[in-house]
Amino acid sequence: MTRWPLPEPMALALKEAQAAADSGEVPIGAVIVKDGRVIATGRNAPRERHDPTSHAEIEAIRAAAQVLGNERLEGCELWVTLEPCAMCAGAIAHARIARVYYGASDPKGGAVEHGARIFEHPQCLHRPEVYAGIGEAQAAEMLRGFFRARR
Amino acid sequence: MTRWPLPEPMALALKEAQAAADSGEVPIGAVIVKDGRVIATGRNAPRERHDPTSHAEIEAIRAAAQVLGNERLEGCELWVTLEPCAMCAGAIAHARIARVYYGASDPKGGAVEHGARIFEHPQCLHRPEVYAGIGEAQAAEMLRGFFRARR
Repeated sequence: MTRWPLPEPMALALKEAQAAADSGEVPIGAVIVKDGRVIATGRNAPRERHDPTSHAEIEAIRAAAQVLGNERLEGCELWVTLEPCAMCAGAIAHARIARVYYGASDPKGGAVEHGARIFEHPQCLHRPEVYAGIGEAQAAEMLRGFFRARR
Repeated sequence: MTRWPLPEPMALALKEAQAAADSGEVPIGAVIVKDGRVIATGRNAPRERHDPTSHAEIEAIRAAAQVLGNERLEGCELWVTLEPCAMCAGAIAHARIARVYYGASDPKGGAVEHGARIFEHPQCLHRPEVYAGIGEAQAAEMLRGFFRARR
C-alpha cells in the first residue's frame, strides 16, 4: 500500500508543530505560500515569547507581511495544522488570505467550523476558501501525544 | 456646566488614537492598566508596520505581556476607544484580561456586542467583564473626522 503523500506545505507545517512541541509549546505549526513558494512559517510560542497572540497562524502572517512589505497577503495561502481560533480567523480575514488549509478540527477552541464561526458573519469583510482535514491524523496525534506526556 | 471627566486611561487611549490618525492610520488607541497603573499603550498601525494584526489592542496586549514577562495578563484592564473586532476579542480572552472598557460601538467590525460575539460562545475560555460607552462620543467623532477627511 502506498499512502497518498501530504502536500508539501502541510508537511512543513507539521514540522513547525513538532518544533513547538520540542520547546514545550502546544504543537501547532503554520506556513504561508504565495505563487507556489513558501514565504513564511510560524509555530505556536506564547510561553517562550511571553506573547498571548503568538499562535502559529499569527506568527506566519506577521512574517509574511514583513516579507511582502504589505499588511495584505493577497493571493496567499495559509496552511495550518489545527482549525484556527477566533483570534487567528480574524487575523486571516484582516490579512485577506485567499485560501486556508487546515489539518485537525478543534471543537474546543476552533472558530471556523465551531463556536464563533468567524467567516460566516456579515461583519467578516473577507472570506477565504477553506479546506479542512489535510494531515488531520498526524496533527491530532501530535497534539494528543503532547498532552499525554504532560499529564 | 461641568462635563464629567473621562477616566484617565480612556483619555490616554484617545491620545493614542489621535497619534494613529496623525500617522494616517484609522484612529483607535488602547491602554493596559494593572493595579491602577498604566503598563502599556498601543495604537492602530497596520500600514506603517506592514502587519495586519497591528490593532491598538494587540499592540497594547503584546507590550504589556513583555512588561510582565508573562503571556497572561491576569488582573489587567484593557481600555480601548472602539469595540474590539473578532481578532482582538480572541486575543483578550487568550490574555485573560479581567476587564475591558471600550468607547464607541462598532456594528460593522465589532465582535463583542455584534457579529461573532466572541465572549458569548462556550468555546471562549475566558470572559472579561465588559463596560461600553466610555468616551464614545469622542472616539466616534475622531473616526468620523478621519474618514470624512479621506473621502
